[in-house]
Amino acid sequence: MQTIKIIKKMRAFSNKLRSEGRTIGFVPTMGALHEGHLSLVRRSKSENDVTVVSIFINPTQFGPEEDFEQYPRNMESDLGKLSGLSTDAVFIPDDTEMYPEGPAVSVHTGHIGEILCGASRPGHFDGVATVVARLFNAVMPNRTYFGQKDYQQTVVIKKMVREQGLDAEIIVCPIIREPDGLAISSRNAYLNTGERKAAAVLHKALKHGEDLMKKGADDPSQVIKEMEKVIGSEPLAEPEYVEIVSPEDLSSMIKISIPACLCLAVKIGTTRLIDNVIVQKNAG
Amino acid sequence: MQTIKIIKKMRAFSNKLRSEGRTIGFVPTMGALHEGHLSLVRRSKSENDVTVVSIFINPTQFGPEEDFEQYPRNMESDLGKLSGLSTDAVFIPDDTEMYPEGPAVSVHTGHIGEILCGASRPGHFDGVATVVARLFNAVMPNRTYFGQKDYQQTVVIKKMVREQGLDAEIIVCPIIREPDGLAISSRNAYLNTGERKAAAVLHKALKHGEDLMKKGADDPSQVIKEMEKVIGSEPLAEPEYVEIVSPEDLSSMIKISIPACLCLAVKIGTTRLIDNVIVQKNAG
Repeated sequence: MQTIKIIKKMRAFSNKLRSEGRTIGFVPTMGALHEGHLSLVRRSKSENDVTVVSIFINPTQFGPEEDFEQYPRNMESDLGKLSGLSTDAVFIPDDTEMYPEGPAVSVHTGHIGEILCGASRPGHFDGVATVVARLFNAVMPNRTYFGQKDYQQTVVIKKMVREQGLDAEIIVCPIIREPDGLAISSRNAYLNTGERKAAAVLHKALKHGEDLMKKGADDPSQVIKEMEKVIGSEPLAEPEYVEIVSPEDLSSMIKISIPACLCLAVKIGTTRLIDNVIVQKNAG
Repeated sequence: MQTIKIIKKMRAFSNKLRSEGRTIGFVPTMGALHEGHLSLVRRSKSENDVTVVSIFINPTQFGPEEDFEQYPRNMESDLGKLSGLSTDAVFIPDDTEMYPEGPAVSVHTGHIGEILCGASRPGHFDGVATVVARLFNAVMPNRTYFGQKDYQQTVVIKKMVREQGLDAEIIVCPIIREPDGLAISSRNAYLNTGERKAAAVLHKALKHGEDLMKKGADDPSQVIKEMEKVIGSEPLAEPEYVEIVSPEDLSSMIKISIPACLCLAVKIGTTRLIDNVIVQKNAG
């Protein structure tokens, strides 16, 4: 497994592969790798000649009050996991490599980055889009793999790729869950035992909303109210938002139409968790 | 000369050339081509296997009160001039091709786009950076040619290219001037006879500043005051800014050091004109 720290070397690596007609699959991560990330790496390996994983905890997508400092860092363990999957290359730039002049030139995502998670995390999706654009320029992937757990992120990035005319395919992979339904996330490590148990309420609420829709419920505010009741039953849980939106563009619905994305952000103690379910036609 | 209107076709054209190892020179324009543009095309032709010129009047770089509607449009004459220079391809996307979803995802240039011209044209450089990023993704040039007249633009774009890690060389070409020193610009067409004569004052002021510096003047506010006096001697001229900045990053100077960029924006009647001179070591 090659370890690359410099953008120029990363691009030379990719340029060589591209000139040989070999395809590059790319999995951008912030490290603290878990089964969700590893599922993306496996998928990339099955679909591309070469797989590159980046590990970079991007400062520009954290707000000043957020958890940049305490975000889990386990580089050695991460490299072991990637090596175990026979990942071809790991790209590990540092802050001065990614932001040589500070984060002055940035990508601005507009409305789609200001709703849902963007409402409580101003600037977050601009930071995500900025770093992903820079990573794309370094890695020049044919296909890039993201987890559905950060669903809004996948919509923002697809929009950026479409609008900026970037030559990259975005592939969204299913959420990996714990046995009780909790979506696997690096931030689950923040939970104590009681909170960890309570965190199952996110998926429970989503499943309840999905069930109601499958039974024909078509009033979004009614379904949202029912999902909020489920969250309200858990004393450690404080909902930030519960929404039903179009999976395509995250627009809200006056009347529920399928496919629909049920999504939510909930604080469990001091830890903010997100999750979503996409209800498809003929699903279940 | 090939005419290409669709991003996908533009990229296919460039991909083929790149896979053949041929180099692409690119001259982005808003049409209304004059000797300044043509000098860029000639330079590109001398340095690359293939030269692509784009013509796109970018709506996102015009403010609501600015001259987007009246900006000169002479497509037939432009194509004639480019064909006369044996340009290989002209890329002429329309608004829906360049902004399929409106200008939602944009590039934000920060401080460097908010000073000098950016102070009176809020959002202008964000619009420039956004369209140039999109054009780069479509044309995938090895080298891109800009005129020095829009000096701040060249600094902003170089910064974007560096920071975003884009694989493109930016080449800044000398200002082409009329016999009386007026920098050639599409907007000179707005001037009536009296204004056209008055417009020579921009270059006159710059030359005066340069002369003072060559004689050893090192107090920027003093030199600026002298340049403003020259502009003040022309009744039709109304200065917007006169500045002496570092050519590298446009930072202002407490004491003049060489190289220095003398730059100004002046209204002649209702027409806003810009010009600059870069004073080099041992110049003159």
